[in-house]
Amino acid sequence: VNALSGRSNLSLRVISGVILFPLAVTVTVVGGIPFALLAGGAAAVAALELVRMFGPLGAGEALGVLVAGALPVAANFAQDGALLPPWTALFLAGATVALLGTLLFRSGPLEALPRSAAVVALSWFYCGLLLACAVGLRRFGVGWVILAFVVTWANDTFAYFTGRAFGKRKLFERISPKKTWEGFAGGAVGSVVGALVTRWLLPTEAGPGTTDLASLSIAATVAVGAGGAVLGPLGDLCESMFKRAAGVKDSGWIIPGHGGLLDRIDALLFVAPWIYLWAAYGVS
Amino acid sequence: VNALSGRSNLSLRVISGVILFPLAVTVTVVGGIPFALLAGGAAAVAALELVRMFGPLGAGEALGVLVAGALPVAANFAQDGALLPPWTALFLAGATVALLGTLLFRSGPLEALPRSAAVVALSWFYCGLLLACAVGLRRFGVGWVILAFVVTWANDTFAYFTGRAFGKRKLFERISPKKTWEGFAGGAVGSVVGALVTRWLLPTEAGPGTTDLASLSIAATVAVGAGGAVLGPLGDLCESMFKRAAGVKDSGWIIPGHGGLLDRIDALLFVAPWIYLWAAYGVS
Repeated sequence: VNALSGRSNLSLRVISGVILFPLAVTVTVVGGIPFALLAGGAAAVAALELVRMFGPLGAGEALGVLVAGALPVAANFAQDGALLPPWTALFLAGATVALLGTLLFRSGPLEALPRSAAVVALSWFYCGLLLACAVGLRRFGVGWVILAFVVTWANDTFAYFTGRAFGKRKLFERISPKKTWEGFAGGAVGSVVGALVTRWLLPTEAGPGTTDLASLSIAATVAVGAGGAVLGPLGDLCESMFKRAAGVKDSGWIIPGHGGLLDRIDALLFVAPWIYLWAAYGVS
Repeated sequence: VNALSGRSNLSLRVISGVILFPLAVTVTVVGGIPFALLAGGAAAVAALELVRMFGPLGAGEALGVLVAGALPVAANFAQDGALLPPWTALFLAGATVALLGTLLFRSGPLEALPRSAAVVALSWFYCGLLLACAVGLRRFGVGWVILAFVVTWANDTFAYFTGRAFGKRKLFERISPKKTWEGFAGGAVGSVVGALVTRWLLPTEAGPGTTDLASLSIAATVAVGAGGAVLGPLGDLCESMFKRAAGVKDSGWIIPGHGGLLDRIDALLFVAPWIYLWAAYGVS
């Protein structure tokens, strides 16, 4: 998300909040296949945006999209506390062989091919695996996914308004000239408060094999929010760095008026595995 | 492996056969941690060679080496028919966040960073995951790993001598000018015969949770060899394409007189997941 960037304005932010957030939350509550398909579709679109940023790649694009999109869907069928089903590793090994094998039959100059193919491999991790963490979270209870959303988006929103009101010292001028340390601090408050409110509001619902969100201590909840306050902006900066390196302004075209899907979910991508770590290993 | 390339000569090939093949077979028979460490070490060196080919990357290199090297070792601790333990997916998600996060703090021009980081992600799949398949094979019985070795190296050796004796029509001149269709055909005979001999010679040893190599039908064994006869040369060509795209002659320096470890294992990397597919799903 491009909080504090010139392009993002308040009306876009409101649309994003009014339409996208409730949609994501509703499908998250529904869970199961609809939620997995939404995440898989988002991973596929994000992978396409990433691969296209670094040059068209023919069959490689299709492989990037299909494999990245398959991972969150696969996560829905994982069992026994695993993030992905056991067959996923061999599936990815086969996809790697297919990706590199098809590369040989591309015409044109060789020089750029390996690096472009490598971007496809990156998209499997960055778009596919990181969104699979969000789907995997759902098995621990819907509250954990909502927690990831709130930590991410409360951070972004608080950072935006705090930065607008008090922003002075540049956070990371080389990549994102409008971000400030003041905005970062405000975002951190947002993440921590958001985490605490989510833990307080959401009903306990631990079933067999799930970890109850309510079993998170207050100190742990603060730690979850504080970690998200670092990871969210880091994910945002990374995606900005990709765009800057590729020389594009927006990652894509999927949401009218917005910069691309990757722009919308970049912070969530870095926050999701962090929340998963707590859900799966952090509370007993 | 650069069969039929000008650089590879008979004496190197003999050294490779006399030292490396028995070493790999011995450690494979020993199994357990020594085998996993050998494969992990090979994956780490191969990842370093791959990442260095496409430019130095500082902390990214270390992450490439550590994560690629960890996957074959992790495969040794997988259970219940999985190729990797359940925690591997979250480990890779965290490694992805670390890889992209550290990228932000690299100095110098941005343009090349994402593609170079993407090569690190590729090395996790190409070097780490594909060699993890070889380690995973060990659980189905040592014969399955030997089968992967024999299918790969019989292919290479037969292709070399057949190509030298009868080679005329170019197989893939753009990448590997010395490879011929005659050599490819000879290699295919080598893979199939090697597969049949391995299945015939190796003692049955199916224990609980393993699939007996002897339960592979003759037709299936021919199919395994034939698939390896395509995948081995494809893996070889891919690695040659990497070197050609990077403008280097050898992938590395680890084995004196040889072109680099990646040059030695490139065909095995593509054959291992194919054999794993048969061991895990092909026979009942």
